[in-house]
Amino acid sequence: MPNGAQALLQTLADAGIDVCFSNPGTSEMHFVAALDSEPRMRAVLCLFEGVATGAADGYARMAGKPAATLLHLGCGLGNGLANLHNARKGKVPVVNIVGDHATFHVPLDAQLQSDIETVARNVSPGFVRTSNHTADLCRDAADAITAARGLPGQVATLILPADVSWGDGGQPCPPPPLPAPAAPDDGAVQAIADAIRSGGKAALLLGGQALREPALLAAAKIAAHCGMKVFCEVFPTRLERGAGLPAVERIAYLAEMASLQLSGLQHLVLVDAKSPVSFFAYPGKASDLVPTGCTVHTLATPAQDAVAGLDKLAAALDATSATPVLQAAARPSRPRGRLTAAKVCKAVGHLLPERAILIDEAITSGLMLGVMTAGGPRHDLLTLTGGAIGQSLPNAVGAAIACPDRKVLALVGDGSAMYTVQALWTMARERLDVIAVIFNNASYSVLNVELDRVGAGSRGGPKAKAQLDLHGPVLDFASLARGMGVTATRCDRADAFCTALETALATPGPHLIEAVVPESLNASKRRVLPWLLRSLPNLPKPVALALKRKIAP
Amino acid sequence: MPNGAQALLQTLADAGIDVCFSNPGTSEMHFVAALDSEPRMRAVLCLFEGVATGAADGYARMAGKPAATLLHLGCGLGNGLANLHNARKGKVPVVNIVGDHATFHVPLDAQLQSDIETVARNVSPGFVRTSNHTADLCRDAADAITAARGLPGQVATLILPADVSWGDGGQPCPPPPLPAPAAPDDGAVQAIADAIRSGGKAALLLGGQALREPALLAAAKIAAHCGMKVFCEVFPTRLERGAGLPAVERIAYLAEMASLQLSGLQHLVLVDAKSPVSFFAYPGKASDLVPTGCTVHTLATPAQDAVAGLDKLAAALDATSATPVLQAAARPSRPRGRLTAAKVCKAVGHLLPERAILIDEAITSGLMLGVMTAGGPRHDLLTLTGGAIGQSLPNAVGAAIACPDRKVLALVGDGSAMYTVQALWTMARERLDVIAVIFNNASYSVLNVELDRVGAGSRGGPKAKAQLDLHGPVLDFASLARGMGVTATRCDRADAFCTALETALATPGPHLIEAVVPESLNASKRRVLPWLLRSLPNLPKPVALALKRKIAP
Repeated sequence: MPNGAQALLQTLADAGIDVCFSNPGTSEMHFVAALDSEPRMRAVLCLFEGVATGAADGYARMAGKPAATLLHLGCGLGNGLANLHNARKGKVPVVNIVGDHATFHVPLDAQLQSDIETVARNVSPGFVRTSNHTADLCRDAADAITAARGLPGQVATLILPADVSWGDGGQPCPPPPLPAPAAPDDGAVQAIADAIRSGGKAALLLGGQALREPALLAAAKIAAHCGMKVFCEVFPTRLERGAGLPAVERIAYLAEMASLQLSGLQHLVLVDAKSPVSFFAYPGKASDLVPTGCTVHTLATPAQDAVAGLDKLAAALDATSATPVLQAAARPSRPRGRLTAAKVCKAVGHLLPERAILIDEAITSGLMLGVMTAGGPRHDLLTLTGGAIGQSLPNAVGAAIACPDRKVLALVGDGSAMYTVQALWTMARERLDVIAVIFNNASYSVLNVELDRVGAGSRGGPKAKAQLDLHGPVLDFASLARGMGVTATRCDRADAFCTALETALATPGPHLIEAVVPESLNASKRRVLPWLLRSLPNLPKPVALALKRKIAP
Repeated sequence: MPNGAQALLQTLADAGIDVCFSNPGTSEMHFVAALDSEPRMRAVLCLFEGVATGAADGYARMAGKPAATLLHLGCGLGNGLANLHNARKGKVPVVNIVGDHATFHVPLDAQLQSDIETVARNVSPGFVRTSNHTADLCRDAADAITAARGLPGQVATLILPADVSWGDGGQPCPPPPLPAPAAPDDGAVQAIADAIRSGGKAALLLGGQALREPALLAAAKIAAHCGMKVFCEVFPTRLERGAGLPAVERIAYLAEMASLQLSGLQHLVLVDAKSPVSFFAYPGKASDLVPTGCTVHTLATPAQDAVAGLDKLAAALDATSATPVLQAAARPSRPRGRLTAAKVCKAVGHLLPERAILIDEAITSGLMLGVMTAGGPRHDLLTLTGGAIGQSLPNAVGAAIACPDRKVLALVGDGSAMYTVQALWTMARERLDVIAVIFNNASYSVLNVELDRVGAGSRGGPKAKAQLDLHGPVLDFASLARGMGVTATRCDRADAFCTALETALATPGPHLIEAVVPESLNASKRRVLPWLLRSLPNLPKPVALALKRKIAP
């Protein structure tokens, strides 16, 4: 009869969970030893827990099923919390396994003892369980799997005491059934159709599972038939886009611009999305972005079948045979001269390969990425769903393991990259096809914008500015990458960047390209920004939109 | 009238809290802007929250007073949790400030919204408070300061919503009084004196505040007078040691050896220390290390005055005028030949400067550090109090800021160093006198030992072994250091290491020395280890002790 750990691994593998992103310690040694008893399980070692959890997030986004993690007690869970938060906010399934001391050791309050469950509740409000008996372990694991891949997906935390792991008498559990989404409510569909038909400006807001081809097509038919806009949530978990697919308009990060996008709306229809709110609060500004007088309707909750809901709405509106507007193929030209953040985005658009996985964690420097890649070949876009930076490099590890036949491009700012830079080592170790593009502008650039936006800029002096400045010393990411076994190039000319990207695309394995760029918004532009943002709602809309294109950070 | 953030900074500075280790985001921008209004506050930017919290820990250990942190919401707190855990277990005061969304933004469940308090309780069981009104903020901060520097010291978490920070009407609070330790209980002292006098083998176990010179001297007098041993907890927060001070015997990390150290004891007297338990649990082994028949006495709890307790005990035992045994001055010779972990420790002992701060996070490679530095010049030793790895480099940042006139040497294994390697950047930015020595043996070496110790070694195959192996690619720490602006040397010869250490000691600013070494315990030694450890209690004690010296990993 297998021990607890061996039975657990069998249960996971039987349920199709065959990748485990791990950073184990002593209390997980029996789980580690059991890996050799389960040939279906691939264990991927990460040098920091935030890499393991972010990889599990990226894996599930692309594989459409959860991976397991293996973390070491409360401190390991803490280290992994930020990327589990991103998974939670993105409704991404993760079977989060946290080793604990043996049950009889817990009361002794040894050095590593801490309250794991209290930490886990932050990211696993729906499922935290400590498995206290070897005989129950696999049933607990099956419950965790069911919870994780429920609708919506979630982070399910299974706490695994060492003695439950090493105990004899493990009883593998048959795979739990996959959940079926609830059918959309016919009454709600009809009411929404009536509201749209009643006139007044209406729009769809898609999120979650509604950003894949079938939902996008249904939404585009409705949009074409009714003259509606289709918005996408600010930070989509996984958005299919590119030539041949319907394009959607992402809600802007800056609340002032999002308000402009939504202004005049009378009906906003949510499809697996939240009603839009600003990312942060600002003094004297509303956090709720829904315009006054606009009614918010829910076509599909995250637990409901979004595609069925859109299909039903299309039928109710007689839009089933409408012709959706599809994105035309188009690529930007090859950039030249001194490298800027926009030219990096242009180069990516110029060279984007077929079926790439694009991960965007370049808050200010990636501004032009959407425009530059819109007409490129079909690709998936993964973004910072929970706003916890340090997501992209770990996400790239997971996405590359989920899709070994596709190229992964992770674009990330210097500040964000440093949170989980250890991911580079796992890329090298597993020889993953990842190209990490680091925008090095030696600044927490977005915070320079935010310092002004919250109205604190005028009060801040040199000490405040120093908190947002990454000079002295400037980071050398190429050197960091080489230290972890990843080929790296540093460039400050557009030609060199294009050549480096071409080489990286042509050569299997991981590559890092460090793009040395000036800040997207220099100090004088930043000073003007708050005034412009304040003025936007009072300007004629075409003027405001033209300005928006110029000033958006 | 100042805003909330300005009043908060004044309150902190008035209470003597004048260093803040920060990693801010948008919700902390008013705190950042207020830095320029408080000239006494030094803000030290860290590129990852685990660096900020570990620096606050190291600072407080050496400054004897707390620093503040500045973290960004629940995810920032998660990233900082592991080193706050080490501070909690080490009874180290930290005023842990976590920014939050504005109070009116919280109900909207924006991207970064999460339950901060639930995470904070893991490391701040004694004080978590969200300050909800600008007028109350400074009183809340004063309560946090009081809680943090209470006895025992603790991590006090103050959650600071953005609107409370930016709101007008901040009211600075006068500094709260410093806590006074409770007097030891005379009855307990007398009972302990009687127990010691009654005969039977007795020992003192010192921890916490009882590892500084006054307590060590009082304990050494008692030991000399009564023929008792003086033990020190496994992972001391701050231990003063070196020539001219009484030496104490640290309880071993390996439970089997600790049992040997404690065997035959009839009375164990705790002085600001916990009753000894094993670090981890092992199948079929007891976790409680107190031998059967031994009575555990508490001379001083962490809330009591340990020095007064030892002085009273010395008086009750007529030991006041006893002559304590002091460590004689002695240094090891200069090592030669191929570099090994032991030779690194020898070189450190050979060259240790006066009043160094030695930080030991080299679990297996640092084995010989204690022996090699025992007779060196007086120094402070900081260790991994909570067992959460990634402590030493951040601790070194804080210790160097607390004691700018002293050299800080941080010795750390390759695996541990990677958790918070971003600390190197702050060392460079602040030009700190830190020498980071990285033992690069390309292995989670301690886990190879633990895999065998938990009895899982025989079950593990190549997949298990791969989880403990840091080859493919081997990390190049010199390259990582240079990427963060720190001078670095890589060496595999003892002479080169000595020269590098001499250069680093003679040159201000941070240095990293990468010591390429074989594992301290090779595979054949590891196979023998479990058998030897099992045999220890059955061997004659001198034989066991001699063996222990040979086999200890």
